Amino acid sequence: MQLPPPKPKKCLFVLADGAGDRPIKRLGNKTPYQLARTPNLDHLSKIGEDGLMDPIAPGIRPGSDTSHLQLFGYDPYKYYSGRGPIEALGVGLELQEGDIAFRCNFATIKDGIVIDRRAGRIREGTHELAKAVNEIAITSVPGVRIIFKESTEHRAALVLRGKSLSPQISTNDPHLAGRPPMKVLPIEHTEAAIRTAKALNEFIEKSHKVLRSHPVNRGRELPANYLLCRGAGKLVRPPSFEQEHGIKGTVIAAEGMIKGVGSLLGMEVIHPKGATGGYDTNLYAKADAAVEALKRSDFVFLHIKETDLAGHDGDPEKKVAVIEDIDKMLGYLLKKIDMGSTIVVFTSDHSTPCSVRNHSADPVPIVIAGGDVRIDYVTHFDELSATEGELRIRGKDLFPILMDLMGRAKKFGA
Amino acid sequence: MQLPPPKPKKCLFVLADGAGDRPIKRLGNKTPYQLARTPNLDHLSKIGEDGLMDPIAPGIRPGSDTSHLQLFGYDPYKYYSGRGPIEALGVGLELQEGDIAFRCNFATIKDGIVIDRRAGRIREGTHELAKAVNEIAITSVPGVRIIFKESTEHRAALVLRGKSLSPQISTNDPHLAGRPPMKVLPIEHTEAAIRTAKALNEFIEKSHKVLRSHPVNRGRELPANYLLCRGAGKLVRPPSFEQEHGIKGTVIAAEGMIKGVGSLLGMEVIHPKGATGGYDTNLYAKADAAVEALKRSDFVFLHIKETDLAGHDGDPEKKVAVIEDIDKMLGYLLKKIDMGSTIVVFTSDHSTPCSVRNHSADPVPIVIAGGDVRIDYVTHFDELSATEGELRIRGKDLFPILMDLMGRAKKFGA
Repeated sequence: MQLPPPKPKKCLFVLADGAGDRPIKRLGNKTPYQLARTPNLDHLSKIGEDGLMDPIAPGIRPGSDTSHLQLFGYDPYKYYSGRGPIEALGVGLELQEGDIAFRCNFATIKDGIVIDRRAGRIREGTHELAKAVNEIAITSVPGVRIIFKESTEHRAALVLRGKSLSPQISTNDPHLAGRPPMKVLPIEHTEAAIRTAKALNEFIEKSHKVLRSHPVNRGRELPANYLLCRGAGKLVRPPSFEQEHGIKGTVIAAEGMIKGVGSLLGMEVIHPKGATGGYDTNLYAKADAAVEALKRSDFVFLHIKETDLAGHDGDPEKKVAVIEDIDKMLGYLLKKIDMGSTIVVFTSDHSTPCSVRNHSADPVPIVIAGGDVRIDYVTHFDELSATEGELRIRGKDLFPILMDLMGRAKKFGA
Repeated sequence: MQLPPPKPKKCLFVLADGAGDRPIKRLGNKTPYQLARTPNLDHLSKIGEDGLMDPIAPGIRPGSDTSHLQLFGYDPYKYYSGRGPIEALGVGLELQEGDIAFRCNFATIKDGIVIDRRAGRIREGTHELAKAVNEIAITSVPGVRIIFKESTEHRAALVLRGKSLSPQISTNDPHLAGRPPMKVLPIEHTEAAIRTAKALNEFIEKSHKVLRSHPVNRGRELPANYLLCRGAGKLVRPPSFEQEHGIKGTVIAAEGMIKGVGSLLGMEVIHPKGATGGYDTNLYAKADAAVEALKRSDFVFLHIKETDLAGHDGDPEKKVAVIEDIDKMLGYLLKKIDMGSTIVVFTSDHSTPCSVRNHSADPVPIVIAGGDVRIDYVTHFDELSATEGELRIRGKDLFPILMDLMGRAKKFGA
């Protein structure tokens, strides 16, 4: 007897940034995923297919930007032009051909030494600081102007606009607190690189003068009195998500970089009210936004940053707590969608092991459920259980797999 | 609560050449690894991540040279220039631009038939034989001179030095005992190939005259009275290990080919006293050398040849015994190093199944332990248990994975 005819499905992709980890001695050699109580993730594992994914390739440490490009079906080796342009797009700046964009940190400098690279993770007043910085005029290089905008917490983006500029310059970021900032230098012998380095050095110096005397910094223990600028890049514009894949895509995120990737690909980008990209974010605002977005969009991507923060902070207990919060939100979200007509994916863009305090190349667990997805033996969502699953894939495999499960993949041959 | 900050780690890489195998009926359809008692390898499996590795790619039968290049992080399709140059470098010859190098066997010829391709695996007197061979002057091709040096057992290396020589020539090795040697022929229609074949034929003929009357061969049942020359190649010099990877590397080996790969990559090459590359090698001398090398080097590679010999000899019981010897040495070695700050890898460059008596393309089991490496379900080190492990990689993935676990990998993106 014939089954009913198939229908195209939608996809809800939930990503916990940097959530993959390594065994932690003080957690009994378990990872945060292994230790966390995650009934909703486990439910997905039980009704779906699980496994491990190398976001780029085994042994390659992914950035969040390159990995997200890959997970959205774009080759990052072709389309990644540095983090600056992505950060700038993420905060809503419009980039023009030839613009050089940077990601920036508000930092604290004292007696010529960077004493906090994040100005105490400043939250209040960055909009006012950015407004003041935006008034700066570059005079050492004719025809160059700056556009500066704050992002979440200590983050911001800078664009240098003008003729003949180059991203081939060094950063002023010493990368470790306790060191003096560095002078920006051209890293290739071109007039454009020399001009760009000169303009950026002038901007950094002038912004320090503007920031240190700004009222927002009055009384701050760690004043946001200095800008660290890195990730210089010139935009490469890929074909839009809808052009490339033939479906509508939505990105729900608070973090500038992720919104930037969505914006780069011409996807709908939603920053729900209360979503901060920090530990105090409102996950339920994101869940509600996802439910709404699924009504108009085929591919809805929900980004969660806090797992990555806990990894960078080297705090495994915090990571466990964040994972349990995410699981609760997932329970709320799954109740509001139709799993029969929605492919649900949960994974990460990379591991950020607490012991490493940075991205590692360890593969990330992944689960795909909903629709008529295969069911494997895995019943718990974690790195170890995932080794028994059906999937052992690379990031570049995932988007085609999702398109297939959604009933939207093209056949190769006849 | 924050974990302590991460520190870069070192890597100890122990390789059992050709140790992977296939099920052997008379061993109850078990492989030598499955049958051998290996408490120390099993310990690594228990505390680390396991899996299978295709040294080059599935279905590709690796040579030891190409596989070692790959495992040291070099693409063999780009950097492999035939075994001759590697063998010549391995015995300590200095190669010059344009040199054509060969690997050679001392063999036994009788009535125009090669009756033993290894002259009874001759051990004594090859230095004297080589000295005599080195006196040969080439007269049929003007300006060509030869450099010849013995390696371990029946092995040796030959260099033809002169203008306009080519590696595009055939071998005189019939590859099977009981056949006459072959005349060396040019395999491309160039003056250089014709000259090179002519010079090599003259060398082979003259060396036969020198060897058959040499005192070393007096009384030998299988006299080393003939040279088989193969693996013709012209050196391609890759960037050094330290240039390429930014870390110091050491190779501990007795076998010429492996020392040659180390030498080709500018790594420190150590041949410990008592290490022979044969069944009578002193594994503990290698272990001691590795412990010392870890004090000055970031990546220490310890090569063990005997598993491959047992495979080529088609002797599964011998292979089991060799694996158990290696395991004992490993127990000794692991007690002398700090596993917290050292990533330990154990694997093979290829399988040499006893039933095949040569390299096969079967993937090899691999274990990575130490530091904060992930722990999977595998508790025994063998081909079958490895199928349940986290890793399913290719040789080209391994070096990046190790660099990541050592805390030395660069991030792709931000």
